[in-house]
Amino acid sequence: MKFCSHCGSDAVTFSIPQGDDRPRHLCGGCGAIHYINPRVIVGTLPYLEDRVLLCKRAIEPRLGLWTLPAGFMENGETSEEGALRESWEEARANVRVDDLYTIYDIPHINQVYLMYRGELSDTNFGAGPESLEVALFREDEIPWEEIAFPIMRETLEHYFADCRKGSFALHRGIIQRKL
Amino acid sequence: MKFCSHCGSDAVTFSIPQGDDRPRHLCGGCGAIHYINPRVIVGTLPYLEDRVLLCKRAIEPRLGLWTLPAGFMENGETSEEGALRESWEEARANVRVDDLYTIYDIPHINQVYLMYRGELSDTNFGAGPESLEVALFREDEIPWEEIAFPIMRETLEHYFADCRKGSFALHRGIIQRKL
Ligand SMILES: [Zn+2]
Ligand SMILES: [Zn+2]
Repeated sequence: MKFCSHCGSDAVTFSIPQGDDRPRHLCGGCGAIHYINPRVIVGTLPYLEDRVLLCKRAIEPRLGLWTLPAGFMENGETSEEGALRESWEEARANVRVDDLYTIYDIPHINQVYLMYRGELSDTNFGAGPESLEVALFREDEIPWEEIAFPIMRETLEHYFADCRKGSFALHRGIIQRKL
Repeated sequence: MKFCSHCGSDAVTFSIPQGDDRPRHLCGGCGAIHYINPRVIVGTLPYLEDRVLLCKRAIEPRLGLWTLPAGFMENGETSEEGALRESWEEARANVRVDDLYTIYDIPHINQVYLMYRGELSDTNFGAGPESLEVALFREDEIPWEEIAFPIMRETLEHYFADCRKGSFALHRGIIQRKL
């Protein structure tokens, strides 16, 4: 933040406001404190019988790699609505949500992922504008070396392990920065 | 947003960018698109034997009403770390987290609540700067008519119901705008 979005002043510093304990974007012009908070990414794990739907990314980052449909939660929607919206936008997938399935914190990039598990209600899926290709994969067909993000790999690993157990609990996890 | 935080221009409109499907704060000066997304509130339900810890709010909104300790998740922390930080800041409470307990969407104010359940590890709690008073309550002592927020009331109701059942599953919910 170089300029204050309230008053247009360029006297914005990154310093600790009185009574606070961490630096914020502080406007020397109007006194506004601009908070920047983590963002929520919502998505689904769509399955049909023993297969899971993945999208091949048409956009950076990780263009050409595979992921579950997910994206930034928007104002005015619930996390489940956002997950269904992203599933439609990226994969033209209609998903009947069973339950929240994984929640992951990624603190070094200020993100929280909420992934919902749900059955595809039809097979009329297809690539949305942010996908090159959308397809169903059995566990042994998953392109494990070409999964775009660790959160998606872990969510898929939990899913196939839970399929073998026959029960699907919520999984929580943290993705740490690679050293 | 009246001024662009990248370039300081006042030519900021709220309109739909090309290729998008909803209005954003768009800068006519530098072309920046400013996204505003939901915020995450993290907190705990601290218990000790058959009692639950509540804080009497020293700040608006709902000054003087009772709530579980919770606040905005900060960049660089996990949701559980944030929940423990808020429990310390508001109630000087040391909590040993059992598990994520409730997740609530409040779409009309663009918030997602993540509440963790955990036992107090000692009784050295006390009012932080945002609390007037902090105390432990049995179910029949809870000031039900003076609970600050519906999400907190519902989380408490789930908790005492689960205590009677003897099992604590994750609860998901949506708080809708009162009509
Ligand atoms: Zn300002
Ligand atoms: Zn600009």
